[in-house]
Amino acid sequence: MPKTSMLAQAQPFADAERDAVYKAIFTRRDVRDQFLPDPFPDDVLRRLLQAAHHAPSVGFMQPWNFIIIRNQAVRDRVADAFGQANAEAAQMFPQERQSKYKSLKLEGIRKAPLNLCVTCDRDRGGNVVLGRTHNSSMDLYSTVCAVQNLWLAARAEGIGMGWVSIFRDADLKPILGIPDRIEIVAYLCLGYVDQLYEQPELEVKGWNKRLCLDELIFEEGWQGGL
Amino acid sequence: MPKTSMLAQAQPFADAERDAVYKAIFTRRDVRDQFLPDPFPDDVLRRLLQAAHHAPSVGFMQPWNFIIIRNQAVRDRVADAFGQANAEAAQMFPQERQSKYKSLKLEGIRKAPLNLCVTCDRDRGGNVVLGRTHNSSMDLYSTVCAVQNLWLAARAEGIGMGWVSIFRDADLKPILGIPDRIEIVAYLCLGYVDQLYEQPELEVKGWNKRLCLDELIFEEGWQGGL
Repeated sequence: MPKTSMLAQAQPFADAERDAVYKAIFTRRDVRDQFLPDPFPDDVLRRLLQAAHHAPSVGFMQPWNFIIIRNQAVRDRVADAFGQANAEAAQMFPQERQSKYKSLKLEGIRKAPLNLCVTCDRDRGGNVVLGRTHNSSMDLYSTVCAVQNLWLAARAEGIGMGWVSIFRDADLKPILGIPDRIEIVAYLCLGYVDQLYEQPELEVKGWNKRLCLDELIFEEGWQGGL
Repeated sequence: MPKTSMLAQAQPFADAERDAVYKAIFTRRDVRDQFLPDPFPDDVLRRLLQAAHHAPSVGFMQPWNFIIIRNQAVRDRVADAFGQANAEAAQMFPQERQSKYKSLKLEGIRKAPLNLCVTCDRDRGGNVVLGRTHNSSMDLYSTVCAVQNLWLAARAEGIGMGWVSIFRDADLKPILGIPDRIEIVAYLCLGYVDQLYEQPELEVKGWNKRLCLDELIFEEGWQGGL
């Protein structure tokens, strides 16, 4: 079989297709509150998971699993774990930011019709994984790429997604029966939306500002502070 | 200002737009050898970096920097650092996989017209970052989301991208003048392509197989091995 036998023509997308990809990228939001109660069709969920499963993975390891959570009792326990961690988190901020922090809604665990926990099985490829030999985080990074694929596909489907990161793993793992050796990468809330913020919610609400891209770009080497 | 003032209508994409997003996701490849020598227009590079800069970031921290590398002497040094690490990597595999490993081309550092190092400044948001209080990796994960945005935008632009992970940070940082406190998340090779593999290259070349998605999906809790 000649080396090129599986190579196919790959041109730039037509303008309208390219614009659609950018539209997904630029209008994607981290959604915490705009979820509608509309049910989540199985075929849509399947497409989102296919998108995630087609992320790049180090050594083609595909280290991810997807735990779908709809059960209300499970979500109540997850929401409690969030609540406990979030109360701890609020205390960590300087006094002047605490009331602002507490005013932000940071999750849609109960409101979103579907929750999804994305995990990384670090043993899946054996001890030695092509591309992970010198950067042991590459399997976690592959799993993050799966999350971002899912997020952009969700936007195109009219589904909002929020990534909830304020948990202790030690609280979340027993709720979902996740073994010690499995890493939780993301806990996601998903549901249809008919409104999204035009800018990131933390920008709209005055938590942080968009940085100037020009100041983040360097040429030929690091040009920032030491 | 009423709470909803920055909310805008957000419908599902039209079918053709949605299909374009999936086309980017499903036809994106990790490119090591198909790069054309065509120059990389500044406006295209700018769009790719804008796409990266619009990734989700924990606490709207935007911890990323983008180091553009075109200089041939710099790339020669990076390629040497790769070569050294890759020779070490080959030795780690079982004897029967070593010749296969050595037959794979795993980088396009010299061939691609543009290299891009994406870093994470973990201090950018101060000590306490919203959403990072209980998962210290969230800033690194945000930076990975930026890489995946860039990868999908590149596909739409007709540009192939490869992620090179086989380096010692201690070799790469001095070449690019990156301070100790800054984390290297990704070293990327970019250039126009007119052909791409129809399936992931590591699948085409028999390194690993695509896993069955059904076996990766669990309901309500972990259902895999302990």
